[in-house]
Amino acid sequence: MAKIAVVGGTGDLGSAIARTLIKAGHQVSIGSRRAESAAQHAAELGPGVGHGVNAEVARGCDFVIVTVPYSAQAGTLADIKDSVGDAIVVDTTVPLVPPKVMRVQLPAAGCAALEARELLGEGVRLVSAFHNVAAHKLAEGHGVDCDVLVFSDDVEARAAVVELACGMGLRGLAAGSLANSAAAEALTSILIFFNKTYKADGAGVRFTGLTTAPAVA
Amino acid sequence: MAKIAVVGGTGDLGSAIARTLIKAGHQVSIGSRRAESAAQHAAELGPGVGHGVNAEVARGCDFVIVTVPYSAQAGTLADIKDSVGDAIVVDTTVPLVPPKVMRVQLPAAGCAALEARELLGEGVRLVSAFHNVAAHKLAEGHGVDCDVLVFSDDVEARAAVVELACGMGLRGLAAGSLANSAAAEALTSILIFFNKTYKADGAGVRFTGLTTAPAVA
Repeated sequence: MAKIAVVGGTGDLGSAIARTLIKAGHQVSIGSRRAESAAQHAAELGPGVGHGVNAEVARGCDFVIVTVPYSAQAGTLADIKDSVGDAIVVDTTVPLVPPKVMRVQLPAAGCAALEARELLGEGVRLVSAFHNVAAHKLAEGHGVDCDVLVFSDDVEARAAVVELACGMGLRGLAAGSLANSAAAEALTSILIFFNKTYKADGAGVRFTGLTTAPAVA
Repeated sequence: MAKIAVVGGTGDLGSAIARTLIKAGHQVSIGSRRAESAAQHAAELGPGVGHGVNAEVARGCDFVIVTVPYSAQAGTLADIKDSVGDAIVVDTTVPLVPPKVMRVQLPAAGCAALEARELLGEGVRLVSAFHNVAAHKLAEGHGVDCDVLVFSDDVEARAAVVELACGMGLRGLAAGSLANSAAAEALTSILIFFNKTYKADGAGVRFTGLTTAPAVA
């Protein structure tokens, strides 16, 4: 059992991840910029779920999972930067630029994960993951037909998040350094395009041919 | 039956694509910078396969498929630019930067497909595809467990290449505009990482949840 804060945990992806982590037996707290919103969403998730403003819930955790829209990424990372300590920060940010969310528009730095690296500084253990999982599919709790690509320059932290994902019933796959997050971030626009073009209800991505992939829990 | 030039057709991917197109009944020519090399490879593919230098074979085709390493992309596109006419140019270039080929390193323009757009000019019908198919798997001819993402700003040209891929026994998927090619190009480094990390013999990518995807031929 890990102690996990879901920062931006009042959104669709954050709620779905929190719900799944709770089911997997972890101790979860919901963070928001507004304490009342965090409290309300925590109550909906059941008894024993912590809550508070982002900087508060990020303190003393094993993992801090950041699930905010791209426009809120910089502000949220600034909020938690000084309280995360040794926790592994898992950034899920996809750099979508509305209204053209079906168009890949990666930032000049290469990807949102490298921007997070810049914002948090080298001292923070940073992993990037969960970019491609459809929130509503995860929330339904019947399993998700989608792999979770996990990126980090910190190999141990990356392995810990792969294991965390597997414990959530997902297949986590170590997929290289933080710079490689560009692939997963870009894929999200492709999946949105597929949802529209091929009338998919939450398109996903699977990798084939892996002979020593970690088992799905 | 289409008339198709495979430019850079002496490489692994080019040979595999040419072989598959010939099997599917198309009239194929192999292009190279060196005429003798093109002739030799064409002979290996069987009788009736055309050959010549790139600018030559690119003339009068329905499709011109460019399968060269990133370092040769600009030169090759310059070679064929004035001879492709109304053909659909299919660029397969992945912007790998050796020796770190497992690291996503997209160019400043966003992706190799957008660089191709710049190099060829607006007058050429440009599609980007076949970035993720393992050449040796395709060459084996037993089917490939990998979707083919197809990108273009020209919707008709994109649909034609989706159909071409399906005719090759692959699942082609329209995946948006040329800018979206960044996703498939970046994915190639992930697949190379998987081949090493998960001891895969040609990792591939499949998309899930698509309800109206084109049938695989």
